[in-house]
Amino acid sequence: MKIVVLKNNLREGLNIVGKAISENLNLPILKNVLIKTHNNKIKLVATNLELAITQMVSGKIIENGSITVPFSVLSGIVNNSDSERIDLELKNNTLLFKTDNYEASIQGIAEEEFPIIPKIENTRNYLKINGGIFKEAMLKVLNSAQISEIRPEISGVLFDFQISHFKLVTTDSFRLAEKTVFEKEFKTNFQRGFKIIIPLKMVSEAIKILKDDGDLNIFIDPNQILFQNDDIEIISRLIDGNYPDYEQIIPKSFETECILNREHFSSAIKLVSNFTGKTNDIRIKTKQGQKTLEVFSTSPYFGENKYLIPAKIKGENFDVAFNWRYLVDGLKNFNTPDDLIFGVNGEQKPSILKHPQDSSYFYILMPIKGV
Amino acid sequence: MKIVVLKNNLREGLNIVGKAISENLNLPILKNVLIKTHNNKIKLVATNLELAITQMVSGKIIENGSITVPFSVLSGIVNNSDSERIDLELKNNTLLFKTDNYEASIQGIAEEEFPIIPKIENTRNYLKINGGIFKEAMLKVLNSAQISEIRPEISGVLFDFQISHFKLVTTDSFRLAEKTVFEKEFKTNFQRGFKIIIPLKMVSEAIKILKDDGDLNIFIDPNQILFQNDDIEIISRLIDGNYPDYEQIIPKSFETECILNREHFSSAIKLVSNFTGKTNDIRIKTKQGQKTLEVFSTSPYFGENKYLIPAKIKGENFDVAFNWRYLVDGLKNFNTPDDLIFGVNGEQKPSILKHPQDSSYFYILMPIKGV
Repeated sequence: MKIVVLKNNLREGLNIVGKAISENLNLPILKNVLIKTHNNKIKLVATNLELAITQMVSGKIIENGSITVPFSVLSGIVNNSDSERIDLELKNNTLLFKTDNYEASIQGIAEEEFPIIPKIENTRNYLKINGGIFKEAMLKVLNSAQISEIRPEISGVLFDFQISHFKLVTTDSFRLAEKTVFEKEFKTNFQRGFKIIIPLKMVSEAIKILKDDGDLNIFIDPNQILFQNDDIEIISRLIDGNYPDYEQIIPKSFETECILNREHFSSAIKLVSNFTGKTNDIRIKTKQGQKTLEVFSTSPYFGENKYLIPAKIKGENFDVAFNWRYLVDGLKNFNTPDDLIFGVNGEQKPSILKHPQDSSYFYILMPIKGV
Repeated sequence: MKIVVLKNNLREGLNIVGKAISENLNLPILKNVLIKTHNNKIKLVATNLELAITQMVSGKIIENGSITVPFSVLSGIVNNSDSERIDLELKNNTLLFKTDNYEASIQGIAEEEFPIIPKIENTRNYLKINGGIFKEAMLKVLNSAQISEIRPEISGVLFDFQISHFKLVTTDSFRLAEKTVFEKEFKTNFQRGFKIIIPLKMVSEAIKILKDDGDLNIFIDPNQILFQNDDIEIISRLIDGNYPDYEQIIPKSFETECILNREHFSSAIKLVSNFTGKTNDIRIKTKQGQKTLEVFSTSPYFGENKYLIPAKIKGENFDVAFNWRYLVDGLKNFNTPDDLIFGVNGEQKPSILKHPQDSSYFYILMPIKGV
């Protein structure tokens, strides 16, 4: 292998595939990145066995070939290099790296010892969507999921496909977020009723890597999912398991409807949370005839505090405890200057945050009982 | 106590005194900040017993008084508050904090239980210097010192006063930095030959807190030092002990003199360091008749690399190992586009970094022997 590549191209490519590099003590080659000539371009690949990321980089290919080298070393010298142009040449299993004043011999391991990167066999079934729109949809549900060893089926994002729309759903059993993306935003030939669970790790890396402009193509086979965007490919195993039947817990109505300013509500919660110490519970209550929500908390060590926030309130009075971090997470996901609906169902049943006009997203939150 | 204060003033004051707040499990009151009316201003004080920081804040004093409250709570609500104006009122030992929509009752502890903040009795002896100049001088020596339990006398900055100049010196026994500040920069009535050791913690916090414009007044008594700058006072115990007789290890000449570009040298070292893994040693060598330094390193796992950097070289050839982090630390302290002198004395004796014209600063570094 003999190639010439611009430093900035190689650096950008390594930054992207580096998201899949892991410290795997049983399989040290996972710390390596594969460099391979392919269709007159340079293919960079990294994998942690769950997830693989591939990036094609432009360069001048003088001689074809492939090698894997330690990612940390290659990426360190590329990031610190002061040259624009890099010459790479393979001699036996050593990668020679040369710039104007600098040369390195990096001990490599042959491609044959690198894990085989899985492929999606059937690429006839696809979904095509703008990268930015898909990223924004994923971002709205990302913070409601957590990796759970006990319940792997909720350690990911449910992708629930219905011809005219698809939903992305996450839950950690305390809260649940659902984002709907409508037909006008995508093209597909998927079948109705098609549900898969995409691992959280893939979603969180994809948000960092995928480009806002340009199309994202999604291909799925029974065990795997591929995101293809520009010169980037991210492939991951799917999570095996049945997603909980979440639709039954979505409140259809609420005992109290509060309409209030999102940012003001969020500031009030953060302010009051300063008295919660290591527990995260704050209380929210309404009083007969008042046009304010009272957000308050009490601490045996610090004292107590309350914030009155103006709101349009309809329905029953309530006094309910919430994990303030979960409430702030939900409010953050809306990203709108508009007032939101905070629908409360007493301290036994879930509350909801939603936009009065835009039904494409909501966030459900369980109260803390008996605090 | 009853006062009105602008949020931004209180926030800024808390940010400054907060640098002295510590998690002391034996004396939980050290997590509190003292708020006290004083000369028609608000005095904020925090201490970790070694170091105390006081900041005077403007406000409207309606009624005098004092209280200590948990710093984390007060600072949290001030930082998150959306009001410009804050009302503070003391009721028994509870501090009432009120803004437009918000009120808090913070449980306080009376000032009587707060440690007494030491005072400098004799303020006739002073040194007056521009805050920015003193900060810059401290910054040049800060990274050559480390807190050492075994050798407390080097866990600080030596302040060595000679009528026409003073020196700031630090060492961690692997490297040593010396900055001289000349008479024209300061006014003083200190006596010649006066030496004290200022704790590292005080110096590192003072660099963050002190203002660049305006005068810094330094007062010293046998056990304590006070920095007074604008409305801020930082007082600290001095380190007891004899500073090592460092002057004997300062090389008076060198076997090899290399003149080279500071930033170029630093980039070369960082680039080559990527092969050092967990050890930090790189080697630097010259070859007969060549006008370059070779910076290189070898790793049994990764391979090897070298960088050739142009230099004017006079004297003996050498091949010496250094801790690359220490070299980069030293180069960073110069902050000049000019070429520097790198003076080498083989692998047994210290090397030196200095400016060809400016003798007010140098950085000495021991080679790594027998690598």
